[in-house]
Amino acid sequence: MPRQKHSNSIYALILAGGTGTRLWPRSRRDRPKQLLPLISTRTMLQETTDRILPIIPADHIFVVTNEGFVETAREQLPDLPAKNIISEPEGHGTAPSIGLGGLYIEKLDPAAVMLSLHADHYIEKADAFRQALLAAAQVARQGCLVTLGIKPNQPETGYGYIQRGELIETLGDQPVFRVARFLEKPDEAAAIRFVESGEYYWNSGIFAWRIRTLWEEYARYQPRLFKQLRTIGRDLGTRRGRATMARVWSKIANETIDVGIMERSQRVAALPIDVGWSDVGSWATLLDLLPGNRENNVVVGEHVGVDTLSSLIYSPQRLVATVGLKDIIVVDTEDAILVCPKSRAQEVRHIVETLKQQSKHKYL
Amino acid sequence: MPRQKHSNSIYALILAGGTGTRLWPRSRRDRPKQLLPLISTRTMLQETTDRILPIIPADHIFVVTNEGFVETAREQLPDLPAKNIISEPEGHGTAPSIGLGGLYIEKLDPAAVMLSLHADHYIEKADAFRQALLAAAQVARQGCLVTLGIKPNQPETGYGYIQRGELIETLGDQPVFRVARFLEKPDEAAAIRFVESGEYYWNSGIFAWRIRTLWEEYARYQPRLFKQLRTIGRDLGTRRGRATMARVWSKIANETIDVGIMERSQRVAALPIDVGWSDVGSWATLLDLLPGNRENNVVVGEHVGVDTLSSLIYSPQRLVATVGLKDIIVVDTEDAILVCPKSRAQEVRHIVETLKQQSKHKYL
Repeated sequence: MPRQKHSNSIYALILAGGTGTRLWPRSRRDRPKQLLPLISTRTMLQETTDRILPIIPADHIFVVTNEGFVETAREQLPDLPAKNIISEPEGHGTAPSIGLGGLYIEKLDPAAVMLSLHADHYIEKADAFRQALLAAAQVARQGCLVTLGIKPNQPETGYGYIQRGELIETLGDQPVFRVARFLEKPDEAAAIRFVESGEYYWNSGIFAWRIRTLWEEYARYQPRLFKQLRTIGRDLGTRRGRATMARVWSKIANETIDVGIMERSQRVAALPIDVGWSDVGSWATLLDLLPGNRENNVVVGEHVGVDTLSSLIYSPQRLVATVGLKDIIVVDTEDAILVCPKSRAQEVRHIVETLKQQSKHKYL
Repeated sequence: MPRQKHSNSIYALILAGGTGTRLWPRSRRDRPKQLLPLISTRTMLQETTDRILPIIPADHIFVVTNEGFVETAREQLPDLPAKNIISEPEGHGTAPSIGLGGLYIEKLDPAAVMLSLHADHYIEKADAFRQALLAAAQVARQGCLVTLGIKPNQPETGYGYIQRGELIETLGDQPVFRVARFLEKPDEAAAIRFVESGEYYWNSGIFAWRIRTLWEEYARYQPRLFKQLRTIGRDLGTRRGRATMARVWSKIANETIDVGIMERSQRVAALPIDVGWSDVGSWATLLDLLPGNRENNVVVGEHVGVDTLSSLIYSPQRLVATVGLKDIIVVDTEDAILVCPKSRAQEVRHIVETLKQQSKHKYL
């Protein structure tokens, strides 16, 4: 596989909108996961940008995010042109977001290959990941929608899966498969079957395509959205741009790229990768990702433990003291504390729901 | 039993020195349990005083405490004469403390009956407790050292026990026994035997005696301490008082009233009582004492729980959110958080030991 560096025709869009609830109390409505330093001293958005800068120049990197996060994203990414941080007045799912980013990239280079990434993913092996992105770009040039499929290391029920079809080609040692189908989050029995078969990958939501291919598929499978995007694109950068965007965007229907395009397209290819990927979907993931100490505890902050094992102590401000705990998550913030067994980390969203029901807005 | 109210000859000494470690992180070196509001909005010292004020006038109530706590104790007890808060330059155990209090009381009334109480005990049935104190005072007038024995409701291994001897008399429906012996904290098998026999009581450390009887027993069993106390007493209230106290006190040997006097005296009587007594020896005790909500959780502060049962959430400042916990203690303070299963609440002292070893003085 030929190594490509700073190919002028590769652009990246980083999706940095949305607010999750499963990393509460650290992530809040006004400061979601992607804008927080969770894994290192850099925020996840910064990590995502840092990770691709060796292969994509800063002015080829775009970020789409909620209107309210634009300023913070610009502060966090001073090397990117300010105009590359694109504001969504409101979120309508990934299909409109990706389309919006595509309009900006198309303006610079109609022949561009576009990578679409999420701002809140963790990648352990950055170099292998960059190689995979370059390979994906190369496949994309042939007119495919390319998705990176994560080789599963456990029967995870929290992710969607991709079933591979026949082998299309091999770039170096990187196989490329046709995609047989996309599958929603499975139950455990199905997940076990998927992993054992070796034919299924986690759907990472990381894609590569030519802008031209993308528009063809939008026109075919999302004609209304495609028309709305074209209207926005027509006025982009003109005096009418802002007004057109405001008017059209509010009428766009919610749609994800997976359901709206990928599951319907006949031109999808998958590149299986094994790069230590995680969507950092809960505090339990963080406990798995971060390096543990002698007692297998992951400690951010100050901790004194008596017989405490395999626990996450996330408390940058205050001392946490524990006795007799195992597989427990303790997260402290300025105004709220979470205590939860690792096995139930997904249920943290119920806490957030309860806070909403109780109108405790200051904690959201 | 005749009801006595505000008997002029009854005085009380409240022992309010010492610093425990098992209620860390709320209790600290500079703010021990007795000076904290743990059970109500009043501190335990205030509760102790409030509890006896219906039967003992404020100027008959004395408090002995560490030099460093005198000012706080005076602030907390504005109704007591300031001179009734007695300062110990350093702690030497309960025998010297009680002797020191005795000197002050003797000055006011050599024929006084003195009650000796701890500032950090909880009593559920205050009225029954006051009746027991008055009965104890009456027995004390006959020349006994009287101890209140707590009827045990479980085979507690954390307390010393008193074995009763023959019945001396019955005051109303209050029996009075001779004491056969004092026993150190038993192992579990012994504790079970003790409780089943019905002949054993927890040693509450709550006493009544005439000052005169006390001095006779000090002279007999602690002659050196007795002589030192007499030297202090001779100069008490004179110009030399302070200097004599400083000189003599530093030479006093450590001794507890239990080992030094009670276990040796032949004149000890026990009044069994059942008043909902607790020494509030750990966070687990607090979880038992305070009223629980529908999920049997004891909550001080704000709590949002998903499937959380029988747990203590003690966090006056910050929201605590929990998922899937049972019998867990969570305590938050300005600078430190404790998480610990109820069953291991005694081990909180190991946390404090570790903090000492690591020279983390600011948390002690």
